[in-house]
Amino acid sequence: MRWARYLVDGRETFGLLEGDRLADVTGDPFDGFERTRATRPLAETKLLAPVMPRTFYAAGLNYAEHVREIAESVGMAPEIPKAADIGYRAINAISGPGDPIVIPADASDQIQYEAELVAVIGREAKRLTYDNCFDCVLGFTIGNDVSERSWQKEDFTLWRAKNTDSFAPMGPWIETEFDQQAARTKVRLNGREIIDFPTANMVHSVADFLVRMTRYVTLYPRDVIWMGTEGKSENMVHGDICEIEITGIGRLRNPVIRASG
Amino acid sequence: MRWARYLVDGRETFGLLEGDRLADVTGDPFDGFERTRATRPLAETKLLAPVMPRTFYAAGLNYAEHVREIAESVGMAPEIPKAADIGYRAINAISGPGDPIVIPADASDQIQYEAELVAVIGREAKRLTYDNCFDCVLGFTIGNDVSERSWQKEDFTLWRAKNTDSFAPMGPWIETEFDQQAARTKVRLNGREIIDFPTANMVHSVADFLVRMTRYVTLYPRDVIWMGTEGKSENMVHGDICEIEITGIGRLRNPVIRASG
Repeated sequence: MRWARYLVDGRETFGLLEGDRLADVTGDPFDGFERTRATRPLAETKLLAPVMPRTFYAAGLNYAEHVREIAESVGMAPEIPKAADIGYRAINAISGPGDPIVIPADASDQIQYEAELVAVIGREAKRLTYDNCFDCVLGFTIGNDVSERSWQKEDFTLWRAKNTDSFAPMGPWIETEFDQQAARTKVRLNGREIIDFPTANMVHSVADFLVRMTRYVTLYPRDVIWMGTEGKSENMVHGDICEIEITGIGRLRNPVIRASG
Repeated sequence: MRWARYLVDGRETFGLLEGDRLADVTGDPFDGFERTRATRPLAETKLLAPVMPRTFYAAGLNYAEHVREIAESVGMAPEIPKAADIGYRAINAISGPGDPIVIPADASDQIQYEAELVAVIGREAKRLTYDNCFDCVLGFTIGNDVSERSWQKEDFTLWRAKNTDSFAPMGPWIETEFDQQAARTKVRLNGREIIDFPTANMVHSVADFLVRMTRYVTLYPRDVIWMGTEGKSENMVHGDICEIEITGIGRLRNPVIRASG
Protein backbone atom coordinates (compact mmCIF):
# COMPACT_ATOMS: atom_id res chain seq x y z
CA MET A 1 0.00 0.00 0.00
CA ARG A 2 1.03 3.59 -0.56
CA TRP A 3 -0.17 6.18 1.98
CA ALA A 4 -0.32 9.83 0.95
CA ARG A 5 -1.40 12.89 2.94
CA TYR A 6 -3.11 15.98 1.51
CA LEU A 7 -5.69 18.64 2.29
CA VAL A 8 -9.38 18.19 1.46
CA ASP A 9 -11.35 21.38 2.16
CA GLY A 10 -8.47 22.53 4.39
CA ARG A 11 -8.53 19.34 6.48
CA GLU A 12 -5.61 16.86 6.74
CA THR A 13 -6.65 13.69 4.90
CA PHE A 14 -4.85 10.41 4.35
CA GLY A 15 -5.44 8.43 1.20
CA LEU A 16 -4.33 5.25 -0.54
CA LEU A 17 -2.63 5.62 -3.89
CA GLU A 18 -4.21 3.20 -6.38
CA GLY A 19 -2.90 3.59 -9.91
CA ASP A 20 -3.17 7.29 -10.70
CA ARG A 21 -5.90 8.01 -8.15
CA LEU A 22 -6.00 8.66 -4.40
CA ALA A 23 -8.73 6.96 -2.35
CA ASP A 24 -9.57 9.12 0.69
CA VAL A 25 -9.91 7.46 4.09
CA THR A 26 -11.32 8.68 7.38
CA GLY A 27 -8.86 8.33 10.23
CA ASP A 28 -5.23 7.54 9.46
CA PRO A 29 -2.83 4.63 9.12
CA PHE A 30 -1.61 5.08 12.71
CA ASP A 31 -4.84 5.02 14.74
CA GLY A 32 -7.12 3.17 12.33
CA PHE A 33 -8.97 4.14 9.16
CA GLU A 34 -11.96 3.42 6.95
CA ARG A 35 -12.11 3.89 3.22
CA THR A 36 -14.59 6.42 1.89
CA ARG A 37 -16.09 6.47 -1.59
CA ALA A 38 -14.20 9.63 -2.53
CA THR A 39 -11.29 9.37 -4.92
CA ARG A 40 -9.29 12.07 -6.67
CA PRO A 41 -6.64 12.21 -9.37
CA LEU A 42 -3.07 12.16 -8.02
CA ALA A 43 -1.98 14.56 -10.75
CA GLU A 44 -4.37 17.24 -9.50
CA THR A 45 -3.65 16.80 -5.76
CA LYS A 46 -1.01 18.77 -3.85
CA LEU A 47 0.63 16.24 -1.55
CA LEU A 48 1.91 17.12 1.91
CA ALA A 49 4.81 15.44 3.70
CA PRO A 50 3.21 12.00 4.27
CA VAL A 51 3.53 12.27 8.05
CA MET A 52 4.25 15.03 10.54
CA PRO A 53 6.46 13.20 13.06
CA ARG A 54 6.36 13.23 16.81
CA THR A 55 10.15 12.85 17.02
CA PHE A 56 12.33 13.35 13.93
CA TYR A 57 15.29 10.98 14.24
CA ALA A 58 18.26 11.03 11.86
CA ALA A 59 21.11 8.54 11.60
CA GLY A 60 23.51 11.17 10.27
CA LEU A 61 26.72 9.67 8.87
CA ASN A 62 25.76 6.13 7.85
CA TYR A 63 27.36 5.35 4.44
CA ALA A 64 31.12 4.87 4.18
CA GLU A 65 31.92 6.98 1.10
CA HIS A 66 29.81 9.89 2.40
CA VAL A 67 31.65 9.80 5.74
CA ARG A 68 34.91 10.39 3.85
CA GLU A 69 33.42 13.06 1.55
CA ILE A 70 31.80 15.06 4.34
CA ALA A 71 34.91 14.87 6.54
CA GLU A 72 36.91 16.37 3.69
CA SER A 73 34.22 18.99 3.04
CA VAL A 74 34.12 20.26 6.65
CA GLY A 75 37.86 19.76 7.30
CA MET A 76 37.79 16.92 9.80
CA ALA A 77 39.22 13.39 9.91
CA PRO A 78 36.81 10.76 8.58
CA GLU A 79 35.49 8.43 11.27
CA ILE A 80 33.08 5.58 10.52
CA PRO A 81 30.46 5.49 13.34
CA LYS A 82 31.16 2.51 15.61
CA ALA A 83 27.57 2.12 16.84
CA ALA A 84 24.05 2.94 15.66
CA ASP A 85 23.90 6.18 17.66
CA ILE A 86 20.87 8.16 16.55
CA GLY A 87 20.58 11.93 16.16
CA TYR A 88 17.81 14.45 15.57
CA ARG A 89 16.38 16.90 13.10
CA ALA A 90 13.66 19.50 13.76
CA ILE A 91 10.00 19.45 12.73
CA ASN A 92 10.00 23.06 11.48
CA ALA A 93 12.30 22.03 8.62
CA ILE A 94 9.85 19.53 7.10
CA SER A 95 8.11 20.31 3.83
CA GLY A 96 6.27 18.30 1.21
CA PRO A 97 6.73 17.09 -2.36
CA GLY A 98 6.95 20.02 -4.74
CA ASP A 99 7.54 22.58 -1.99
CA PRO A 100 10.46 24.91 -2.64
CA ILE A 101 13.77 24.50 -0.81
CA VAL A 102 14.32 28.13 0.23
CA ILE A 103 17.98 29.12 0.59
CA PRO A 104 18.29 31.97 3.14
CA ALA A 105 19.73 35.19 1.71
CA ASP A 106 22.83 34.97 3.96
CA ALA A 107 23.64 31.32 3.17
CA SER A 108 26.79 30.40 1.25
CA ASP A 109 26.62 28.77 -2.18
CA GLN A 110 27.30 25.37 -0.58
CA ILE A 111 23.67 24.20 -0.44
CA GLN A 112 23.54 20.47 -1.05
CA TYR A 113 20.98 17.65 -1.24
CA GLU A 114 21.31 14.41 0.72
CA ALA A 115 19.07 11.56 -0.48
CA GLU A 116 17.83 9.43 2.42
CA LEU A 117 15.63 6.43 3.06
CA VAL A 118 13.09 7.20 5.81
CA ALA A 119 11.50 4.58 8.09
CA VAL A 120 8.05 5.60 9.36
CA ILE A 121 7.00 4.14 12.73
CA GLY A 122 3.42 2.81 12.89
CA ARG A 123 3.26 1.30 16.38
CA GLU A 124 4.64 2.10 19.83
CA ALA A 125 7.72 0.01 20.49
CA LYS A 126 10.44 -0.52 23.10
CA ARG A 127 13.14 -3.20 23.54
CA LEU A 128 12.88 -4.46 19.98
CA THR A 129 14.86 -7.50 18.81
CA TYR A 130 16.30 -8.31 15.39
CA ASP A 131 13.43 -10.80 15.01
CA ASN A 132 10.55 -8.39 15.64
CA CYS A 133 11.94 -4.92 14.94
CA PHE A 134 10.14 -4.35 11.64
CA ASP A 135 6.72 -5.05 13.21
CA CYS A 136 6.58 -1.42 14.38
CA VAL A 137 7.48 0.03 10.96
CA LEU A 138 4.50 1.20 8.89
CA GLY A 139 6.60 1.70 5.78
CA PHE A 140 9.25 3.80 4.07
CA THR A 141 9.42 7.15 2.35
CA ILE A 142 12.14 9.48 0.99
CA GLY A 143 13.84 12.47 2.62
CA ASN A 144 16.12 15.20 1.31
CA ASP A 145 18.42 16.29 4.17
CA VAL A 146 19.32 19.67 2.67
CA SER A 147 22.60 20.96 4.12
CA GLU A 148 24.46 24.27 4.14
CA ARG A 149 28.08 23.13 4.39
CA SER A 150 29.60 26.36 5.73
CA TRP A 151 27.12 26.36 8.63
CA GLN A 152 27.74 22.63 9.07
CA LYS A 153 31.32 23.52 10.08
CA GLU A 154 30.10 26.08 12.65
CA ASP A 155 26.86 24.64 14.07
CA PHE A 156 27.58 22.02 16.72
CA THR A 157 23.86 21.11 16.70
CA LEU A 158 23.41 21.63 12.91
CA TRP A 159 20.51 23.94 13.72
CA ARG A 160 20.98 26.27 10.74
CA ALA A 161 22.98 23.83 8.59
CA LYS A 162 20.22 21.23 8.40
CA ASN A 163 17.16 22.57 10.23
CA THR A 164 16.44 25.86 8.52
CA ASP A 165 12.77 26.05 7.40
CA SER A 166 12.21 23.99 4.20
CA PHE A 167 15.51 22.02 4.55
CA ALA A 168 13.76 18.67 5.10
CA PRO A 169 11.44 17.81 2.19
CA MET A 170 9.82 14.39 2.73
CA GLY A 171 7.60 12.22 0.52
CA PRO A 172 5.94 11.60 -1.82
CA TRP A 173 4.14 8.82 0.12
CA ILE A 174 4.75 5.92 2.51
CA GLU A 175 5.30 2.56 0.78
CA THR A 176 4.35 -0.30 3.10
CA GLU A 177 5.76 -3.11 0.89
CA PHE A 178 9.33 -1.94 0.41
CA ASP A 179 12.25 -4.24 -0.43
CA GLN A 180 15.33 -2.49 0.98
CA GLN A 181 17.78 -4.98 -0.49
CA ALA A 182 16.53 -4.48 -4.06
CA ALA A 183 16.35 -0.69 -3.88
CA ARG A 184 18.65 1.95 -5.35
CA THR A 185 18.76 5.61 -4.38
CA LYS A 186 19.25 8.12 -7.19
CA VAL A 187 19.56 11.90 -7.34
CA ARG A 188 18.85 13.96 -10.45
CA LEU A 189 19.58 17.67 -10.60
CA ASN A 190 17.64 19.32 -13.45
CA GLY A 191 17.14 15.85 -14.93
CA ARG A 192 20.84 14.91 -14.89
CA GLU A 193 21.56 11.82 -12.77
CA ILE A 194 24.37 12.58 -10.30
CA ILE A 195 24.09 9.91 -7.64
CA ASP A 196 23.08 6.24 -7.73
CA PHE A 197 23.80 3.89 -4.82
CA PRO A 198 22.37 0.70 -3.28
CA THR A 199 19.94 1.96 -0.62
CA ALA A 200 20.79 -0.82 1.84
CA ASN A 201 24.56 -0.23 1.69
CA MET A 202 24.51 1.36 5.17
CA VAL A 203 27.17 1.24 7.88
CA HIS A 204 24.43 0.43 10.42
CA SER A 205 21.15 -1.01 9.10
CA VAL A 206 17.60 0.09 9.88
CA ALA A 207 17.36 -2.96 12.15
CA ASP A 208 20.59 -1.97 13.96
CA PHE A 209 19.09 1.43 14.76
CA LEU A 210 15.67 0.09 15.79
CA VAL A 211 17.19 -2.45 18.17
CA ARG A 212 19.79 -0.11 19.71
CA MET A 213 17.52 2.94 19.97
CA THR A 214 14.73 1.08 21.72
CA ARG A 215 16.98 -0.05 24.56
CA TYR A 216 16.63 3.52 25.86
CA VAL A 217 13.91 5.19 23.80
CA THR A 218 10.25 4.40 23.17
CA LEU A 219 9.28 4.79 19.52
CA TYR A 220 5.79 6.19 18.86
CA PRO A 221 3.46 6.17 15.86
CA ARG A 222 4.47 8.93 13.37
CA ASP A 223 8.12 9.00 14.48
CA VAL A 224 10.46 8.96 11.49
CA ILE A 225 14.06 7.78 11.20
CA TRP A 226 16.13 9.24 8.35
CA MET A 227 18.86 6.77 7.45
CA GLY A 228 21.68 8.91 6.04
CA THR A 229 23.07 9.28 2.54
CA GLU A 230 25.96 8.12 0.32
CA GLY A 231 28.41 9.88 -1.97
CA LYS A 232 29.41 13.46 -2.70
CA SER A 233 26.77 16.11 -3.33
CA GLU A 234 26.94 19.05 -5.70
CA ASN A 235 25.74 22.56 -4.92
CA MET A 236 22.17 23.56 -5.79
CA VAL A 237 21.33 27.05 -6.99
CA HIS A 238 18.20 29.18 -7.49
CA GLY A 239 16.10 27.68 -10.25
CA ASP A 240 17.33 24.09 -9.87
CA ILE A 241 15.01 21.12 -9.57
CA CYS A 242 16.24 18.37 -7.23
CA GLU A 243 14.69 14.92 -7.62
CA ILE A 244 15.40 11.96 -5.38
CA GLU A 245 14.22 8.52 -6.43
CA ILE A 246 14.30 5.40 -4.32
CA THR A 247 13.25 2.54 -6.56
CA GLY A 248 10.21 0.77 -5.14
CA ILE A 249 9.00 3.93 -3.40
CA GLY A 250 8.83 6.80 -5.88
CA ARG A 251 10.27 10.24 -6.56
CA LEU A 252 10.55 13.30 -4.31
CA ARG A 253 10.93 16.42 -6.44
CA ASN A 254 11.55 19.96 -5.10
CA PRO A 255 12.48 23.25 -6.76
CA VAL A 256 15.22 25.41 -5.24
CA ILE A 257 14.91 29.16 -4.73
CA ARG A 258 17.13 31.68 -2.97
CA ALA A 259 15.40 34.22 -0.72
CA SER A 260 16.08 37.80 -1.74
CA GLY A 261 16.29 39.27 1.78
CA MET B 1 -2.63 32.71 34.60
CA ARG B 2 -1.37 29.23 35.25
CA TRP B 3 -2.15 26.55 32.64
CA ALA B 4 -2.08 22.91 33.65
CA ARG B 5 -2.75 19.76 31.60
CA TYR B 6 -4.31 16.55 32.92
CA LEU B 7 -6.58 13.69 31.95
CA VAL B 8 -10.35 13.83 32.51
CA ASP B 9 -11.99 10.48 31.68
CA GLY B 10 -8.87 9.59 29.68
CA ARG B 11 -9.04 12.76 27.56
CA GLU B 12 -6.33 15.48 27.52
CA THR B 13 -7.75 18.54 29.26
CA PHE B 14 -6.28 21.96 29.92
CA GLY B 15 -7.26 23.87 33.02
CA LEU B 16 -6.55 27.11 34.82
CA LEU B 17 -5.09 26.90 38.31
CA GLU B 18 -7.05 29.14 40.67
CA GLY B 19 -5.98 28.85 44.30
CA ASP B 20 -6.00 25.14 45.06
CA ARG B 21 -8.48 24.20 42.30
CA LEU B 22 -8.23 23.58 38.56
CA ALA B 23 -10.94 25.04 36.32
CA ASP B 24 -11.36 22.84 33.22
CA VAL B 25 -11.57 24.48 29.81
CA THR B 26 -12.64 23.16 26.44
CA GLY B 27 -10.00 23.72 23.77
CA ASP B 28 -6.53 24.81 24.81
CA PRO B 29 -4.40 27.91 25.31
CA PHE B 30 -2.88 27.56 21.82
CA ASP B 31 -5.94 27.37 19.55
CA GLY B 32 -8.54 29.01 21.79
CA PHE B 33 -10.53 27.87 24.80
CA GLU B 34 -13.73 28.32 26.77
CA ARG B 35 -14.14 27.84 30.48
CA THR B 36 -16.49 25.11 31.64
CA ARG B 37 -18.25 24.92 35.00
CA ALA B 38 -16.15 21.92 36.08
CA THR B 39 -13.45 22.42 38.69
CA ARG B 40 -11.38 19.89 40.58
CA PRO B 41 -8.92 19.96 43.49
CA LEU B 42 -5.30 20.32 42.41
CA ALA B 43 -4.21 18.00 45.22
CA GLU B 44 -6.28 15.13 43.78
CA THR B 45 -5.33 15.66 40.12
CA LYS B 46 -2.39 13.92 38.41
CA LEU B 47 -0.80 16.59 36.25
CA LEU B 48 0.81 15.83 32.89
CA ALA B 49 3.68 17.75 31.32
CA PRO B 50 1.86 21.05 30.64
CA VAL B 51 2.48 20.82 26.88
CA MET B 52 3.61 18.13 24.47
CA PRO B 53 5.83 20.14 22.11
CA ARG B 54 6.02 20.11 18.35
CA THR B 55 9.76 20.80 18.43
CA PHE B 56 11.74 20.47 21.67
CA TYR B 57 14.51 23.09 21.59
CA ALA B 58 17.30 23.28 24.18
CA ALA B 59 19.92 25.99 24.65
CA GLY B 60 22.42 23.56 26.16
CA LEU B 61 25.39 25.32 27.80
CA ASN B 62 24.07 28.75 28.73
CA TYR B 63 25.34 29.64 32.24
CA ALA B 64 29.02 30.44 32.78
CA GLU B 65 29.76 28.39 35.90
CA HIS B 66 27.99 25.32 34.47
CA VAL B 67 30.05 25.57 31.27
CA ARG B 68 33.20 25.24 33.40
CA GLU B 69 31.78 22.45 35.59
CA ILE B 70 30.53 20.34 32.68
CA ALA B 71 33.78 20.78 30.73
CA GLU B 72 35.68 19.44 33.72
CA SER B 73 33.17 16.61 34.18
CA VAL B 74 33.44 15.35 30.59
CA GLY B 75 37.15 16.14 30.22
CA MET B 76 37.07 18.98 27.70
CA ALA B 77 38.20 22.60 27.69
CA PRO B 78 35.49 25.05 28.83
CA GLU B 79 34.17 27.25 26.04
CA ILE B 80 31.49 29.91 26.58
CA PRO B 81 29.09 29.78 23.59
CA LYS B 82 29.70 32.82 21.36
CA ALA B 83 26.20 32.91 19.88
CA ALA B 84 22.67 31.82 20.79
CA ASP B 85 22.95 28.58 18.81
CA ILE B 86 20.00 26.36 19.67
CA GLY B 87 19.99 22.58 20.06
CA TYR B 88 17.41 19.84 20.46
CA ARG B 89 16.00 17.26 22.84
CA ALA B 90 13.56 14.46 21.98
CA ILE B 91 9.84 14.20 22.72
CA ASN B 92 10.04 10.61 23.99
CA ALA B 93 12.05 11.81 27.01
CA ILE B 94 9.28 14.09 28.32
CA SER B 95 7.37 13.17 31.46
CA GLY B 96 5.18 15.02 33.93
CA PRO B 97 5.28 16.24 37.52
CA GLY B 98 5.56 13.32 39.92
CA ASP B 99 6.56 10.84 37.23
CA PRO B 100 9.62 8.75 38.10
CA ILE B 101 12.99 9.44 36.52
CA VAL B 102 13.92 5.88 35.53
CA ILE B 103 17.67 5.20 35.43
CA PRO B 104 18.40 2.38 32.95
CA ALA B 105 19.99 -0.70 34.48
CA ASP B 106 23.21 -0.24 32.48
CA ALA B 107 23.67 3.46 33.31
CA SER B 108 26.58 4.64 35.47
CA ASP B 109 26.01 6.26 38.87
CA GLN B 110 26.53 9.70 37.30
CA ILE B 111 22.83 10.56 36.89
CA GLN B 112 22.36 14.27 37.49
CA TYR B 113 19.58 16.86 37.49
CA GLU B 114 19.77 20.12 35.53
CA ALA B 115 17.23 22.77 36.55
CA GLU B 116 16.03 24.80 33.56
CA LEU B 117 13.65 27.61 32.74
CA VAL B 118 11.40 26.64 29.80
CA ALA B 119 9.77 29.12 27.41
CA VAL B 120 6.52 27.83 25.87
CA ILE B 121 5.60 29.21 22.45
CA GLY B 122 1.96 30.23 22.00
CA ARG B 123 1.92 31.73 18.52
CA GLU B 124 3.61 31.07 15.18
CA ALA B 125 6.56 33.42 14.74
CA LYS B 126 9.41 34.18 12.35
CA ARG B 127 11.91 37.06 12.10
CA LEU B 128 11.28 38.29 15.63
CA THR B 129 12.92 41.47 16.94
CA TYR B 130 14.02 42.38 20.45
CA ASP B 131 10.93 44.63 20.62
CA ASN B 132 8.32 42.00 19.78
CA CYS B 133 9.93 38.66 20.59
CA PHE B 134 7.95 37.93 23.75
CA ASP B 135 4.61 38.34 21.93
CA CYS B 136 4.86 34.72 20.76
CA VAL B 137 5.62 33.33 24.23
CA LEU B 138 2.59 31.93 26.07
CA GLY B 139 4.48 31.57 29.33
CA PHE B 140 7.17 29.71 31.25
CA THR B 141 7.49 26.37 32.99
CA ILE B 142 10.27 24.27 34.54
CA GLY B 143 12.33 21.43 33.07
CA ASN B 144 14.74 18.90 34.55
CA ASP B 145 17.31 18.02 31.88
CA VAL B 146 18.38 14.72 33.45
CA SER B 147 21.85 13.71 32.26
CA GLU B 148 23.96 10.56 32.39
CA ARG B 149 27.49 12.01 32.39
CA SER B 150 29.36 8.89 31.18
CA TRP B 151 27.11 8.71 28.11
CA GLN B 152 27.45 12.47 27.70
CA LYS B 153 31.15 11.87 26.96
CA GLU B 154 30.35 9.24 24.32
CA ASP B 155 27.13 10.41 22.65
CA PHE B 156 27.82 13.09 20.06
CA THR B 157 24.05 13.71 19.81
CA LEU B 158 23.37 13.14 23.55
CA TRP B 159 20.73 10.58 22.53
CA ARG B 160 21.18 8.30 25.56
CA ALA B 161 22.80 10.90 27.83
CA LYS B 162 19.83 13.26 27.82
CA ASN B 163 17.03 11.66 25.75
CA THR B 164 16.45 8.32 27.43
CA ASP B 165 12.75 7.83 28.27
CA SER B 166 11.79 9.83 31.42
CA PHE B 167 14.92 12.06 31.30
CA ALA B 168 12.95 15.27 30.60
CA PRO B 169 10.36 15.93 33.33
CA MET B 170 8.50 19.19 32.67
CA GLY B 171 5.95 21.16 34.70
CA PRO B 172 4.08 21.65 36.91
CA TRP B 173 2.22 24.27 34.82
CA ILE B 174 2.75 27.21 32.47
CA GLU B 175 2.89 30.61 34.22
CA THR B 176 1.88 33.39 31.84
CA GLU B 177 2.89 36.28 34.15
CA PHE B 178 6.50 35.42 34.89
CA ASP B 179 9.15 37.96 35.94
CA GLN B 180 12.46 36.47 34.76
CA GLN B 181 14.59 39.15 36.40
CA ALA B 182 13.14 38.53 39.87
CA ALA B 183 13.27 34.74 39.70
CA ARG B 184 15.66 32.29 41.35
CA THR B 185 16.13 28.65 40.39
CA LYS B 186 16.61 26.19 43.25
CA VAL B 187 17.22 22.46 43.43
CA ARG B 188 16.45 20.32 46.47
CA LEU B 189 17.48 16.69 46.69
CA ASN B 190 15.48 14.89 49.40
CA GLY B 191 14.57 18.30 50.82
CA ARG B 192 18.19 19.54 51.06
CA GLU B 193 18.80 22.67 48.99
CA ILE B 194 21.84 22.17 46.74
CA ILE B 195 21.54 24.80 44.05
CA ASP B 196 20.23 28.38 44.06
CA PHE B 197 20.97 30.79 41.21
CA PRO B 198 19.41 33.85 39.55
CA THR B 199 17.29 32.41 36.72
CA ALA B 200 18.10 35.26 34.32
CA ASN B 201 21.88 34.98 34.75
CA MET B 202 22.23 33.40 31.29
CA VAL B 203 25.05 33.76 28.78
CA HIS B 204 22.45 34.33 26.04
CA SER B 205 18.98 35.48 27.09
CA VAL B 206 15.60 34.11 26.06
CA ALA B 207 15.28 37.14 23.78
CA ASP B 208 18.70 36.43 22.22
CA PHE B 209 17.56 32.92 21.32
CA LEU B 210 14.12 33.97 20.03
CA VAL B 211 15.61 36.63 17.77
CA ARG B 212 18.49 34.52 16.44
CA MET B 213 16.51 31.28 16.00
CA THR B 214 13.71 32.92 14.04
CA ARG B 215 16.06 34.27 11.39
CA TYR B 216 16.10 30.66 10.07
CA VAL B 217 13.39 28.77 11.93
CA THR B 218 9.63 29.26 12.29
CA LEU B 219 8.43 28.77 15.85
CA TYR B 220 5.04 27.09 16.25
CA PRO B 221 2.49 26.91 19.07
CA ARG B 222 3.54 24.21 21.63
CA ASP B 223 7.26 24.46 20.79
CA VAL B 224 9.35 24.67 23.96
CA ILE B 225 12.81 26.16 24.51
CA TRP B 226 14.77 24.86 27.51
CA MET B 227 17.23 27.55 28.61
CA GLY B 228 20.09 25.63 30.23
CA THR B 229 21.26 25.38 33.84
CA GLU B 230 23.84 26.76 36.24
CA GLY B 231 26.25 25.20 38.71
CA LYS B 232 27.49 21.73 39.53
CA SER B 233 25.04 18.86 39.98
CA GLU B 234 25.26 15.94 42.37
CA ASN B 235 24.42 12.34 41.51
CA MET B 236 20.90 11.05 42.11
CA VAL B 237 20.27 7.50 43.25
CA HIS B 238 17.32 5.12 43.51
CA GLY B 239 14.88 6.43 46.11
CA ASP B 240 15.84 10.11 45.82
CA ILE B 241 13.29 12.88 45.34
CA CYS B 242 14.47 15.74 43.09
CA GLU B 243 12.61 19.03 43.36
CA ILE B 244 13.25 22.07 41.17
CA GLU B 245 11.71 25.38 42.12
CA ILE B 246 11.69 28.50 40.01
CA THR B 247 10.25 31.26 42.15
CA GLY B 248 7.19 32.77 40.50
CA ILE B 249 6.38 29.53 38.67
CA GLY B 250 6.26 26.65 41.15
CA ARG B 251 7.93 23.33 41.95
CA LEU B 252 8.62 20.32 39.73
CA ARG B 253 9.10 17.22 41.88
CA ASN B 254 10.11 13.77 40.61
CA PRO B 255 11.18 10.56 42.34
CA VAL B 256 14.19 8.65 41.05
CA ILE B 257 14.22 4.88 40.52
CA ARG B 258 16.78 2.54 38.95
CA ALA B 259 15.43 -0.12 36.58
CA SER B 260 16.32 -3.63 37.64
CA GLY B 261 16.93 -5.08 34.18
